[in-house]
Amino acid sequence: MKKALAIDVGGTKIYNAIIDEKGEIISEVEKHSTPKTFEEIKATFKLIIKKYESEVDVIAFSTCGAVNNQNTGIVGSTGNIAKEYPTLDFQSLSTKPVFVENDANCAAWAEYKIGASKDTTVSVMITLGTGVGGGIIINGHLLKGQNGAAGEMHFKMRSDKHRKCTCGSYDCFEIYTSGTGLKLTAEEMTGNKDITTYDVVEGAQKSDSKMLEILDRWHDDLANGIIGLANLFDPDCVVLSGSMAEFVDTKKVEDEVNSQIVTTPTRIVKAQAGNFSGMIGAALLALEVRHG
Amino acid sequence: MKKALAIDVGGTKIYNAIIDEKGEIISEVEKHSTPKTFEEIKATFKLIIKKYESEVDVIAFSTCGAVNNQNTGIVGSTGNIAKEYPTLDFQSLSTKPVFVENDANCAAWAEYKIGASKDTTVSVMITLGTGVGGGIIINGHLLKGQNGAAGEMHFKMRSDKHRKCTCGSYDCFEIYTSGTGLKLTAEEMTGNKDITTYDVVEGAQKSDSKMLEILDRWHDDLANGIIGLANLFDPDCVVLSGSMAEFVDTKKVEDEVNSQIVTTPTRIVKAQAGNFSGMIGAALLALEVRHG
Repeated sequence: MKKALAIDVGGTKIYNAIIDEKGEIISEVEKHSTPKTFEEIKATFKLIIKKYESEVDVIAFSTCGAVNNQNTGIVGSTGNIAKEYPTLDFQSLSTKPVFVENDANCAAWAEYKIGASKDTTVSVMITLGTGVGGGIIINGHLLKGQNGAAGEMHFKMRSDKHRKCTCGSYDCFEIYTSGTGLKLTAEEMTGNKDITTYDVVEGAQKSDSKMLEILDRWHDDLANGIIGLANLFDPDCVVLSGSMAEFVDTKKVEDEVNSQIVTTPTRIVKAQAGNFSGMIGAALLALEVRHG
Repeated sequence: MKKALAIDVGGTKIYNAIIDEKGEIISEVEKHSTPKTFEEIKATFKLIIKKYESEVDVIAFSTCGAVNNQNTGIVGSTGNIAKEYPTLDFQSLSTKPVFVENDANCAAWAEYKIGASKDTTVSVMITLGTGVGGGIIINGHLLKGQNGAAGEMHFKMRSDKHRKCTCGSYDCFEIYTSGTGLKLTAEEMTGNKDITTYDVVEGAQKSDSKMLEILDRWHDDLANGIIGLANLFDPDCVVLSGSMAEFVDTKKVEDEVNSQIVTTPTRIVKAQAGNFSGMIGAALLALEVRHG
Protein backbone atom coordinates (compact mmCIF):
# COMPACT_ATOMS: atom_id res chain seq x y z
CA MET A 1 0.00 0.00 0.00
CA LYS A 2 1.20 3.53 -0.88
CA LYS A 3 2.24 5.77 2.02
CA ALA A 4 2.80 9.46 2.63
CA LEU A 5 4.87 11.32 5.17
CA ALA A 6 2.34 13.93 6.30
CA ILE A 7 3.53 17.16 7.93
CA ASP A 8 1.07 19.62 9.46
CA VAL A 9 2.42 23.15 9.80
CA GLY A 10 0.68 25.62 12.10
CA GLY A 11 1.78 28.85 13.71
CA THR A 12 2.55 27.16 17.03
CA LYS A 13 3.00 23.43 16.31
CA ILE A 14 4.33 21.14 13.60
CA TYR A 15 3.12 17.52 13.54
CA ASN A 16 4.24 14.61 11.40
CA ALA A 17 3.11 11.04 10.83
CA ILE A 18 3.12 8.34 8.19
CA ILE A 19 -0.32 7.77 6.66
CA ASP A 20 -1.43 5.12 4.18
CA GLU A 21 -3.71 5.47 1.18
CA LYS A 22 -6.72 4.47 3.30
CA GLY A 23 -6.10 7.47 5.54
CA GLU A 24 -4.82 5.40 8.46
CA ILE A 25 -2.05 6.78 10.63
CA ILE A 26 0.52 3.96 10.71
CA SER A 27 3.27 5.59 12.80
CA GLU A 28 3.60 7.58 15.99
CA VAL A 29 2.46 11.19 15.61
CA GLU A 30 5.43 13.46 16.38
CA LYS A 31 4.96 17.00 17.64
CA HIS A 32 7.38 19.96 17.48
CA SER A 33 7.04 23.59 18.48
CA THR A 34 7.06 25.78 15.38
CA PRO A 35 10.44 27.59 15.43
CA LYS A 36 10.53 31.36 15.23
CA THR A 37 12.84 31.74 12.24
CA PHE A 38 12.48 30.57 8.64
CA GLU A 39 15.87 28.81 8.75
CA GLU A 40 14.88 26.83 11.85
CA ILE A 41 11.55 25.88 10.28
CA LYS A 42 13.33 24.57 7.19
CA ALA A 43 15.80 22.68 9.39
CA THR A 44 12.90 21.05 11.26
CA PHE A 45 11.28 19.96 7.98
CA LYS A 46 14.59 18.56 6.70
CA LEU A 47 15.13 16.58 9.88
CA ILE A 48 11.66 15.04 9.72
CA ILE A 49 11.95 14.28 6.02
CA LYS A 50 15.45 12.79 6.27
CA LYS A 51 14.21 10.45 8.99
CA TYR A 52 11.21 9.09 7.08
CA GLU A 53 11.41 9.78 3.35
CA SER A 54 12.83 6.38 2.45
CA GLU A 55 9.74 4.72 3.90
CA VAL A 56 7.17 6.67 1.87
CA ASP A 57 6.09 7.48 -1.69
CA VAL A 58 5.34 11.15 -1.21
CA ILE A 59 5.72 14.01 1.25
CA ALA A 60 2.38 15.71 2.03
CA PHE A 61 2.24 19.12 3.71
CA SER A 62 -0.91 20.46 5.34
CA THR A 63 -0.02 24.08 6.00
CA CYS A 64 -1.33 27.40 7.19
CA GLY A 65 -1.64 29.88 4.31
CA ALA A 66 -3.25 29.67 0.87
CA VAL A 67 -1.56 27.19 -1.48
CA ASN A 68 -1.27 27.58 -5.25
CA ASN A 69 -3.21 25.48 -7.76
CA GLN A 70 -0.10 23.46 -8.58
CA ASN A 71 0.19 22.40 -4.91
CA THR A 72 3.84 23.43 -4.87
CA GLY A 73 3.95 26.56 -2.72
CA ILE A 74 2.18 29.27 -0.79
CA VAL A 75 0.27 32.21 -2.29
CA GLY A 76 0.57 35.57 -0.56
CA SER A 77 1.35 35.89 3.11
CA THR A 78 0.46 33.86 6.19
CA GLY A 79 -0.37 35.05 9.68
CA ASN A 80 1.58 33.95 12.71
CA ILE A 81 4.62 32.21 11.25
CA ALA A 82 8.04 33.46 10.05
CA LYS A 83 7.38 36.02 7.33
CA GLU A 84 9.69 34.33 4.77
CA TYR A 85 7.82 31.02 5.13
CA PRO A 86 5.62 31.64 2.04
CA THR A 87 8.77 31.75 -0.13
CA LEU A 88 9.71 28.17 0.76
CA ASP A 89 10.48 25.88 -2.20
CA PHE A 90 8.85 22.77 -0.73
CA GLN A 91 10.08 20.41 -3.47
CA SER A 92 13.70 21.28 -2.56
CA LEU A 93 13.19 19.55 0.79
CA SER A 94 13.10 16.02 -0.62
CA THR A 95 13.97 13.83 -3.59
CA LYS A 96 10.49 12.28 -3.29
CA PRO A 97 7.49 14.20 -4.70
CA VAL A 98 6.35 16.95 -2.33
CA PHE A 99 2.69 17.97 -2.26
CA VAL A 100 1.35 21.02 -0.42
CA GLU A 101 -2.23 22.04 0.43
CA ASN A 102 -3.87 24.47 2.82
CA ASP A 103 -4.69 22.92 6.22
CA ALA A 104 -8.41 23.72 6.15
CA ASN A 105 -8.65 22.27 2.63
CA CYS A 106 -6.82 19.14 3.80
CA ALA A 107 -9.14 18.71 6.77
CA ALA A 108 -12.17 19.16 4.49
CA TRP A 109 -10.76 16.51 2.15
CA ALA A 110 -10.30 14.06 5.04
CA GLU A 111 -13.95 14.56 6.02
CA TYR A 112 -14.97 14.01 2.41
CA LYS A 113 -12.93 10.82 2.02
CA ILE A 114 -13.33 9.14 5.42
CA GLY A 115 -15.44 11.42 7.63
CA ALA A 116 -18.64 13.41 7.97
CA SER A 117 -19.08 14.51 4.35
CA LYS A 118 -18.37 11.14 2.72
CA ASP A 119 -20.31 10.58 -0.53
CA THR A 120 -21.60 14.15 -0.77
CA THR A 121 -21.85 16.20 -3.96
CA VAL A 122 -21.13 19.53 -2.30
CA SER A 123 -19.82 20.10 1.22
CA VAL A 124 -18.68 23.16 3.11
CA MET A 125 -16.34 22.66 6.05
CA ILE A 126 -15.97 25.38 8.66
CA THR A 127 -13.15 25.11 11.20
CA LEU A 128 -14.08 27.02 14.34
CA GLY A 129 -10.93 27.63 16.38
CA THR A 130 -9.10 30.74 17.50
CA GLY A 131 -9.83 31.82 13.91
CA VAL A 132 -12.12 30.30 11.30
CA GLY A 133 -10.99 28.25 8.31
CA GLY A 134 -12.92 26.95 5.36
CA GLY A 135 -12.72 24.13 2.84
CA ILE A 136 -15.31 23.63 0.12
CA ILE A 137 -15.62 20.50 -2.01
CA ILE A 138 -17.71 20.49 -5.17
CA ASN A 139 -18.21 17.34 -7.25
CA GLY A 140 -15.05 15.75 -5.90
CA HIS A 141 -12.82 18.80 -6.27
CA LEU A 142 -11.59 21.31 -3.72
CA LEU A 143 -12.72 24.84 -4.54
CA LYS A 144 -9.38 26.57 -5.11
CA GLY A 145 -10.23 29.68 -7.12
CA GLN A 146 -8.09 31.45 -9.70
CA ASN A 147 -4.92 31.26 -7.56
CA GLY A 148 -5.65 28.77 -4.79
CA ALA A 149 -6.91 31.23 -2.19
CA ALA A 150 -10.64 30.35 -2.20
CA GLY A 151 -12.62 29.16 0.81
CA GLU A 152 -11.83 32.08 3.09
CA MET A 153 -14.63 32.60 5.61
CA HIS A 154 -14.40 36.37 5.43
CA PHE A 155 -17.83 37.56 4.40
CA LYS A 156 -19.49 40.35 6.32
CA MET A 157 -22.08 39.89 9.06
CA ARG A 158 -22.85 43.61 9.22
CA SER A 159 -22.00 46.72 7.22
CA ASP A 160 -21.27 49.35 9.87
CA LYS A 161 -17.61 48.54 10.65
CA HIS A 162 -18.52 47.41 14.14
CA ARG A 163 -15.76 44.89 14.79
CA LYS A 164 -12.31 44.79 13.20
CA CYS A 165 -11.35 41.38 11.80
CA THR A 166 -7.92 39.73 11.86
CA CYS A 167 -7.91 40.07 8.05
CA GLY A 168 -7.77 43.86 8.27
CA SER A 169 -11.38 44.35 7.14
CA TYR A 170 -14.48 44.53 9.36
CA ASP A 171 -17.26 42.30 10.61
CA CYS A 172 -16.30 39.06 8.89
CA PHE A 173 -17.93 35.74 9.80
CA GLU A 174 -14.59 34.76 11.40
CA ILE A 175 -14.58 37.59 13.93
CA TYR A 176 -18.06 36.64 15.17
CA THR A 177 -17.97 32.84 15.12
CA SER A 178 -14.36 32.01 16.11
CA GLY A 179 -13.33 31.58 19.74
CA THR A 180 -12.05 35.14 19.54
CA GLY A 181 -15.43 36.19 18.17
CA LEU A 182 -17.35 34.52 20.99
CA LYS A 183 -15.12 36.25 23.54
CA LEU A 184 -15.69 39.64 21.86
CA THR A 185 -19.46 39.04 21.83
CA ALA A 186 -19.27 38.11 25.53
CA GLU A 187 -17.29 41.29 26.26
CA GLU A 188 -19.88 43.39 24.44
CA MET A 189 -22.80 41.74 26.19
CA THR A 190 -21.34 41.84 29.72
CA GLY A 191 -18.99 44.85 29.67
CA ASN A 192 -16.37 42.53 31.20
CA LYS A 193 -13.06 42.71 29.27
CA ASP A 194 -11.67 39.69 31.12
CA ILE A 195 -14.42 37.23 30.25
CA THR A 196 -13.24 34.07 28.43
CA THR A 197 -14.91 31.59 26.10
CA TYR A 198 -14.50 29.12 28.96
CA ASP A 199 -16.58 31.37 31.24
CA VAL A 200 -19.33 31.47 28.63
CA VAL A 201 -19.38 27.74 27.96
CA GLU A 202 -19.16 26.76 31.62
CA GLY A 203 -21.72 29.37 32.65
CA ALA A 204 -24.13 28.15 29.97
CA GLN A 205 -23.71 24.56 31.18
CA LYS A 206 -24.72 25.79 34.64
CA SER A 207 -27.77 27.53 33.08
CA ASP A 208 -26.50 31.07 33.80
CA SER A 209 -29.02 33.13 31.83
CA LYS A 210 -26.53 35.75 30.63
CA MET A 211 -24.08 33.11 29.44
CA LEU A 212 -26.91 31.23 27.69
CA GLU A 213 -27.89 34.47 25.98
CA ILE A 214 -24.30 34.99 24.77
CA LEU A 215 -24.09 31.42 23.49
CA ASP A 216 -27.44 31.92 21.73
CA ARG A 217 -26.10 35.03 20.02
CA TRP A 218 -23.07 33.02 18.87
CA HIS A 219 -25.41 30.36 17.47
CA ASP A 220 -27.39 33.07 15.66
CA ASP A 221 -24.18 34.42 14.11
CA LEU A 222 -23.21 30.91 13.01
CA ALA A 223 -26.66 30.28 11.54
CA ASN A 224 -26.76 33.66 9.79
CA GLY A 225 -23.44 32.94 8.10
CA ILE A 226 -24.33 29.39 7.15
CA ILE A 227 -27.60 30.62 5.59
CA GLY A 228 -25.52 32.61 3.10
CA LEU A 229 -23.19 29.68 2.41
CA ALA A 230 -26.14 27.32 1.92
CA ASN A 231 -27.83 29.70 -0.52
CA LEU A 232 -24.60 30.09 -2.50
CA PHE A 233 -23.51 26.42 -2.56
CA ASP A 234 -26.69 24.32 -2.02
CA PRO A 235 -24.51 21.87 -0.07
CA ASP A 236 -25.45 18.37 1.06
CA CYS A 237 -23.90 19.24 4.39
CA VAL A 238 -21.94 21.78 6.37
CA VAL A 239 -19.23 20.17 8.52
CA LEU A 240 -18.13 21.94 11.69
CA SER A 241 -14.66 21.19 13.00
CA GLY A 242 -12.12 22.81 15.28
CA SER A 243 -11.96 23.30 19.04
CA MET A 244 -15.14 25.41 19.20
CA ALA A 245 -17.29 22.94 17.24
CA GLU A 246 -18.06 20.90 20.36
CA PHE A 247 -20.06 23.80 21.78
CA VAL A 248 -22.37 24.04 18.78
CA ASP A 249 -25.92 22.72 19.01
CA THR A 250 -26.01 21.47 15.42
CA LYS A 251 -29.73 20.62 15.52
CA LYS A 252 -30.58 24.19 16.51
CA VAL A 253 -28.38 25.68 13.78
CA GLU A 254 -29.67 23.22 11.17
CA ASP A 255 -33.31 24.02 11.96
CA GLU A 256 -32.63 27.75 11.82
CA VAL A 257 -30.71 27.49 8.53
CA ASN A 258 -33.27 25.27 6.82
CA SER A 259 -36.11 27.59 7.87
CA GLN A 260 -34.48 30.53 6.07
CA ILE A 261 -32.77 29.26 2.91
CA VAL A 262 -34.18 29.30 -0.63
CA THR A 263 -32.06 26.33 -1.69
CA THR A 264 -32.72 22.71 -0.66
CA PRO A 265 -32.41 21.49 2.96
CA THR A 266 -28.90 20.88 4.21
CA ARG A 267 -27.41 19.02 7.17
CA ILE A 268 -25.16 20.57 9.82
CA VAL A 269 -22.78 17.93 11.17
CA LYS A 270 -19.67 17.72 13.28
CA ALA A 271 -16.34 16.56 11.87
CA GLN A 272 -15.50 12.86 12.30
CA ALA A 273 -11.99 12.46 10.91
CA GLY A 274 -10.28 13.34 14.19
CA ASN A 275 -7.61 15.75 15.39
CA PHE A 276 -5.19 14.85 12.62
CA SER A 277 -7.59 15.37 9.74
CA GLY A 278 -5.22 17.93 8.21
CA MET A 279 -2.43 15.36 7.89
CA ILE A 280 -4.85 12.67 6.75
CA GLY A 281 -6.35 14.90 4.05
CA ALA A 282 -2.90 16.00 2.88
CA ALA A 283 -1.77 12.38 2.62
CA LEU A 284 -4.91 11.27 0.74
CA LEU A 285 -4.69 14.21 -1.67
CA ALA A 286 -0.97 13.71 -2.25
CA LEU A 287 -1.31 9.98 -2.89
CA GLU A 288 -4.23 10.61 -5.26
CA VAL A 289 -2.64 13.51 -7.16
CA ARG A 290 0.91 12.15 -7.34
CA HIS A 291 0.05 8.48 -7.71
CA GLY A 292 -3.61 8.46 -8.69
CA MET B 1 -23.77 24.02 -37.84
CA LYS B 2 -25.90 22.76 -34.91
CA LYS B 3 -28.77 24.98 -33.81
CA ALA B 4 -31.03 25.36 -30.78
CA LEU B 5 -34.48 26.82 -30.35
CA ALA B 6 -33.91 28.96 -27.27
CA ILE B 7 -36.87 29.97 -25.09
CA ASP B 8 -36.45 32.42 -22.23
CA VAL B 9 -39.18 32.23 -19.59
CA GLY B 10 -39.66 35.08 -17.13
CA GLY B 11 -42.51 36.14 -14.91
CA THR B 12 -43.70 38.79 -17.38
CA LYS B 13 -42.22 37.88 -20.79
CA ILE B 14 -41.34 34.84 -22.86
CA TYR B 15 -38.79 35.24 -25.67
CA ASN B 16 -37.69 32.78 -28.32
CA ALA B 17 -35.04 32.68 -31.04
CA ILE B 18 -32.91 30.23 -32.99
CA ILE B 19 -29.27 30.30 -31.93
CA ASP B 20 -26.30 28.48 -33.46
CA GLU B 21 -23.43 26.74 -31.70
CA LYS B 22 -21.32 29.90 -31.88
CA GLY B 23 -23.94 31.73 -29.82
CA GLU B 24 -25.22 33.80 -32.73
CA ILE B 25 -28.92 34.62 -32.93
CA ILE B 26 -29.88 33.58 -36.46
CA SER B 27 -33.62 34.32 -36.42
CA GLU B 28 -35.94 37.09 -35.34
CA VAL B 29 -36.39 37.30 -31.56
CA GLU B 30 -40.07 36.78 -30.77
CA LYS B 31 -41.65 38.16 -27.63
CA HIS B 32 -44.81 37.06 -25.81
CA SER B 33 -46.44 38.14 -22.57
CA THR B 34 -46.22 35.37 -20.00
CA PRO B 35 -49.76 34.02 -19.65
CA LYS B 36 -51.37 33.85 -16.21
CA THR B 37 -52.29 30.18 -16.17
CA PHE B 38 -50.17 27.06 -16.41
CA GLU B 39 -52.26 25.70 -19.29
CA GLU B 40 -51.78 28.89 -21.31
CA ILE B 41 -48.03 28.86 -20.63
CA LYS B 42 -47.78 25.27 -21.89
CA ALA B 43 -49.87 26.20 -24.96
CA THR B 44 -47.50 29.10 -25.71
CA PHE B 45 -44.46 26.79 -25.46
CA LYS B 46 -46.11 24.22 -27.73
CA LEU B 47 -46.95 26.84 -30.34
CA ILE B 48 -43.36 28.14 -30.40
CA ILE B 49 -41.88 24.63 -30.49
CA LYS B 50 -44.24 23.38 -33.20
CA LYS B 51 -43.26 26.33 -35.39
CA TYR B 52 -39.49 25.85 -35.14
CA GLU B 53 -38.54 22.39 -33.86
CA SER B 54 -37.96 20.91 -37.32
CA GLU B 55 -35.22 23.51 -37.94
CA VAL B 56 -33.17 22.79 -34.81
CA ASP B 57 -31.27 20.04 -33.00
CA VAL B 58 -32.39 20.83 -29.48
CA ILE B 59 -34.84 22.95 -27.48
CA ALA B 60 -33.09 25.09 -24.84
CA PHE B 61 -35.04 26.71 -22.01
CA SER B 62 -33.62 29.56 -19.94
CA THR B 63 -36.11 29.83 -17.11
CA CYS B 64 -36.87 31.51 -13.82
CA GLY B 65 -36.55 29.08 -10.89
CA ALA B 66 -33.85 26.63 -9.84
CA VAL B 67 -33.32 23.76 -12.28
CA ASN B 68 -32.31 20.22 -11.32
CA ASN B 69 -28.88 18.73 -12.03
CA GLN B 70 -30.31 16.63 -14.86
CA ASN B 71 -31.47 19.83 -16.63
CA THR B 72 -34.93 18.35 -17.07
CA GLY B 73 -37.13 20.29 -14.67
CA ILE B 74 -37.55 22.83 -11.92
CA VAL B 75 -36.64 22.31 -8.26
CA GLY B 76 -38.95 23.82 -5.65
CA SER B 77 -41.12 26.83 -6.36
CA THR B 78 -40.68 29.96 -8.44
CA GLY B 79 -41.80 33.48 -7.71
CA ASN B 80 -44.10 35.41 -10.02
CA ILE B 81 -45.34 32.76 -12.46
CA ALA B 82 -48.23 30.26 -12.38
CA LYS B 83 -47.76 28.11 -9.29
CA GLU B 84 -47.97 24.78 -11.20
CA TYR B 85 -45.17 25.84 -13.57
CA PRO B 86 -42.45 23.97 -11.60
CA THR B 87 -44.29 20.69 -12.26
CA LEU B 88 -43.89 21.03 -16.03
CA ASP B 89 -42.44 17.99 -17.84
CA PHE B 90 -40.35 19.96 -20.35
CA GLN B 91 -39.36 16.92 -22.42
CA SER B 92 -43.03 16.23 -23.15
CA LEU B 93 -43.15 19.44 -25.18
CA SER B 94 -41.05 18.15 -28.07
CA THR B 95 -39.72 15.06 -29.82
CA LYS B 96 -36.32 16.80 -29.98
CA PRO B 97 -34.13 16.81 -26.84
CA VAL B 98 -35.24 19.47 -24.38
CA PHE B 99 -32.66 21.10 -22.10
CA VAL B 100 -33.53 23.38 -19.17
CA GLU B 101 -31.34 25.67 -17.07
CA ASN B 102 -31.90 28.58 -14.70
CA ASP B 103 -31.84 31.98 -16.44
CA ALA B 104 -29.08 33.49 -14.31
CA ASN B 105 -26.95 30.39 -14.86
CA CYS B 106 -27.60 30.61 -18.62
CA ALA B 107 -26.60 34.29 -18.70
CA ALA B 108 -23.44 33.50 -16.72
CA TRP B 109 -22.62 30.74 -19.21
CA ALA B 110 -23.05 33.13 -22.17
CA GLU B 111 -20.61 35.58 -20.53
CA TYR B 112 -18.18 32.72 -19.96
CA LYS B 113 -18.39 31.46 -23.54
CA ILE B 114 -18.62 34.68 -25.55
CA GLY B 115 -18.65 37.60 -23.11
CA ALA B 116 -16.97 39.29 -20.18
CA SER B 117 -15.71 36.19 -18.34
CA LYS B 118 -14.28 34.35 -21.35
CA ASP B 119 -11.22 32.22 -20.54
CA THR B 120 -11.56 32.60 -16.75
CA THR B 121 -11.00 29.83 -14.20
CA VAL B 122 -13.62 31.09 -11.75
CA SER B 123 -16.26 33.74 -12.39
CA VAL B 124 -19.19 35.03 -10.40
CA MET B 125 -22.02 36.72 -12.27
CA ILE B 126 -24.45 38.98 -10.43
CA THR B 127 -27.61 40.10 -12.19
CA LEU B 128 -28.81 43.37 -10.70
CA GLY B 129 -32.43 43.94 -11.71
CA THR B 130 -35.67 44.22 -9.77
CA GLY B 131 -34.17 41.31 -7.83
CA VAL B 132 -30.67 39.85 -7.89
CA GLY B 133 -29.63 36.63 -9.61
CA GLY B 134 -26.37 34.74 -9.52
CA GLY B 135 -24.44 32.31 -11.69
CA ILE B 136 -21.06 30.92 -10.66
CA ILE B 137 -18.70 29.07 -13.01
CA ILE B 138 -15.77 27.05 -11.62
CA ASN B 139 -13.26 25.34 -13.90
CA GLY B 140 -15.72 25.21 -16.79
CA HIS B 141 -18.69 24.00 -14.78
CA LEU B 142 -21.72 25.83 -13.44
CA LEU B 143 -21.94 25.62 -9.66
CA LYS B 144 -25.22 23.72 -9.23
CA GLY B 145 -25.05 22.30 -5.71
CA GLN B 146 -26.63 19.11 -4.42
CA ASN B 147 -29.97 19.70 -6.18
CA GLY B 148 -29.35 22.49 -8.68
CA ALA B 149 -30.32 25.43 -6.47
CA ALA B 150 -26.85 26.96 -5.87
CA GLY B 151 -25.85 30.50 -6.79
CA GLU B 152 -28.57 32.29 -4.85
CA MET B 153 -27.40 35.77 -3.80
CA HIS B 154 -29.11 35.56 -0.43
CA PHE B 155 -26.38 36.07 2.12
CA LYS B 156 -26.89 38.55 4.91
CA MET B 157 -25.57 42.12 4.94
CA ARG B 158 -26.52 42.63 8.59
CA SER B 159 -27.79 40.53 11.47
CA ASP B 160 -30.49 42.66 13.10
CA LYS B 161 -33.48 41.84 10.86
CA HIS B 162 -33.57 45.36 9.52
CA ARG B 163 -35.04 44.76 6.07
CA LYS B 164 -37.27 41.87 4.99
CA CYS B 165 -36.12 40.16 1.79
CA THR B 166 -38.30 38.74 -1.01
CA CYS B 167 -37.01 35.28 0.02
CA GLY B 168 -38.78 35.49 3.37
CA SER B 169 -35.60 35.97 5.37
CA TYR B 170 -33.94 39.29 6.27
CA ASP B 171 -31.15 41.56 5.07
CA CYS B 172 -29.97 39.54 2.09
CA PHE B 173 -27.56 40.99 -0.49
CA GLU B 174 -30.52 41.04 -2.92
CA ILE B 175 -32.65 43.38 -0.83
CA TYR B 176 -29.82 45.95 -0.62
CA THR B 177 -28.30 45.81 -4.11
CA SER B 178 -31.29 45.19 -6.39
CA GLY B 179 -33.33 48.05 -7.85
CA THR B 180 -35.80 47.38 -5.06
CA GLY B 181 -32.93 47.59 -2.58
CA LEU B 182 -31.70 50.92 -3.92
CA LYS B 183 -35.23 52.32 -3.64
CA LEU B 184 -35.54 51.09 -0.03
CA THR B 185 -32.16 52.63 0.84
CA ALA B 186 -33.30 55.89 -0.76
CA GLU B 187 -36.55 55.79 1.24
CA GLU B 188 -34.61 55.25 4.47
CA MET B 189 -32.14 58.03 3.72
CA THR B 190 -34.71 60.62 2.60
CA GLY B 191 -37.90 59.67 4.45
CA ASN B 192 -39.66 59.92 1.08
CA LYS B 193 -41.76 56.81 0.38
CA ASP B 194 -42.32 57.84 -3.24
CA ILE B 195 -38.70 58.16 -4.27
CA THR B 196 -37.68 55.97 -7.25
CA THR B 197 -34.38 54.51 -8.44
CA TYR B 198 -34.77 56.90 -11.38
CA ASP B 199 -34.85 59.88 -8.98
CA VAL B 200 -31.63 58.65 -7.38
CA VAL B 201 -29.77 58.00 -10.60
CA GLU B 202 -30.93 61.23 -12.28
CA GLY B 203 -30.26 63.28 -9.14
CA ALA B 204 -26.77 61.81 -8.85
CA GLN B 205 -26.07 62.68 -12.48
CA LYS B 206 -27.03 66.27 -11.64
CA SER B 207 -24.65 66.14 -8.63
CA ASP B 208 -27.44 66.33 -6.02
CA SER B 209 -25.48 65.62 -2.83
CA LYS B 210 -28.19 63.51 -1.15
CA MET B 211 -28.68 61.37 -4.26
CA LEU B 212 -24.91 60.94 -4.58
CA GLU B 213 -24.81 59.83 -0.94
CA ILE B 214 -27.54 57.25 -1.59
CA LEU B 215 -25.75 55.95 -4.67
CA ASP B 216 -22.52 55.74 -2.64
CA ARG B 217 -24.30 53.70 0.01
CA TRP B 218 -25.55 51.34 -2.74
CA HIS B 219 -21.97 51.00 -4.03
CA ASP B 220 -20.79 50.22 -0.48
CA ASP B 221 -23.44 47.51 -0.17
CA LEU B 222 -22.37 46.04 -3.50
CA ALA B 223 -18.69 46.13 -2.52
CA ASN B 224 -19.38 44.63 0.92
CA GLY B 225 -21.20 41.70 -0.66
CA ILE B 226 -18.62 41.16 -3.38
CA ILE B 227 -15.85 41.12 -0.75
CA GLY B 228 -17.46 38.02 0.75
CA LEU B 229 -17.91 36.39 -2.65
CA ALA B 230 -14.29 37.14 -3.60
CA ASN B 231 -12.98 35.65 -0.34
CA LEU B 232 -15.08 32.53 -0.84
CA PHE B 233 -14.43 31.95 -4.56
CA ASP B 234 -11.12 33.73 -5.37
CA PRO B 235 -12.64 34.57 -8.78
CA ASP B 236 -10.80 35.94 -11.82
CA CYS B 237 -13.71 38.33 -12.23
CA VAL B 238 -17.15 39.34 -11.04
CA VAL B 239 -19.51 40.14 -13.92
CA LEU B 240 -22.34 42.57 -13.30
CA SER B 241 -25.40 42.31 -15.54
CA GLY B 242 -29.04 43.36 -15.45
CA SER B 243 -30.77 46.71 -15.74
CA MET B 244 -29.08 48.22 -12.67
CA ALA B 245 -25.54 47.30 -13.75
CA GLU B 246 -25.21 50.41 -15.91
CA PHE B 247 -25.29 52.59 -12.78
CA VAL B 248 -22.35 50.83 -11.15
CA ASP B 249 -18.95 52.50 -11.06
CA THR B 250 -17.00 49.25 -11.50
CA LYS B 251 -13.60 50.88 -10.90
CA LYS B 252 -14.77 52.20 -7.54
CA VAL B 253 -16.19 48.82 -6.47
CA GLU B 254 -13.12 46.95 -7.74
CA ASP B 255 -10.74 49.19 -5.80
CA GLU B 256 -12.80 48.84 -2.63
CA VAL B 257 -13.06 45.05 -2.97
CA ASN B 258 -9.36 44.54 -3.72
CA SER B 259 -8.38 46.70 -0.75
CA GLN B 260 -10.29 44.43 1.66
CA ILE B 261 -9.99 40.82 0.45
CA VAL B 262 -7.52 38.21 1.68
CA THR B 263 -7.64 36.32 -1.62
CA THR B 264 -5.96 37.47 -4.85
CA PRO B 265 -7.06 40.61 -6.76
CA THR B 266 -10.19 40.27 -8.85
CA ARG B 267 -11.76 42.31 -11.65
CA ILE B 268 -15.25 43.79 -11.58
CA VAL B 269 -16.62 43.99 -15.12
CA LYS B 270 -19.91 44.60 -16.87
CA ALA B 271 -21.65 41.90 -18.90
CA GLN B 272 -20.98 41.89 -22.66
CA ALA B 273 -23.19 39.15 -24.08
CA GLY B 274 -26.21 41.42 -24.54
CA ASN B 275 -29.86 41.41 -23.58
CA PHE B 276 -30.46 37.87 -24.79
CA SER B 277 -27.61 36.28 -22.88
CA GLY B 278 -30.05 33.93 -21.14
CA MET B 279 -31.17 32.43 -24.47
CA ILE B 280 -27.61 32.36 -25.79
CA GLY B 281 -26.30 30.58 -22.71
CA ALA B 282 -29.16 28.09 -22.77
CA ALA B 283 -28.48 27.32 -26.43
CA LEU B 284 -24.72 26.92 -25.91
CA LEU B 285 -25.23 24.69 -22.86
CA ALA B 286 -27.88 22.58 -24.60
CA LEU B 287 -25.77 22.09 -27.74
CA GLU B 288 -22.74 21.18 -25.61
CA VAL B 289 -24.56 18.84 -23.23
CA ARG B 290 -26.84 17.16 -25.74
CA HIS B 291 -24.48 17.15 -28.70
CA GLY B 292 -21.05 17.83 -27.15
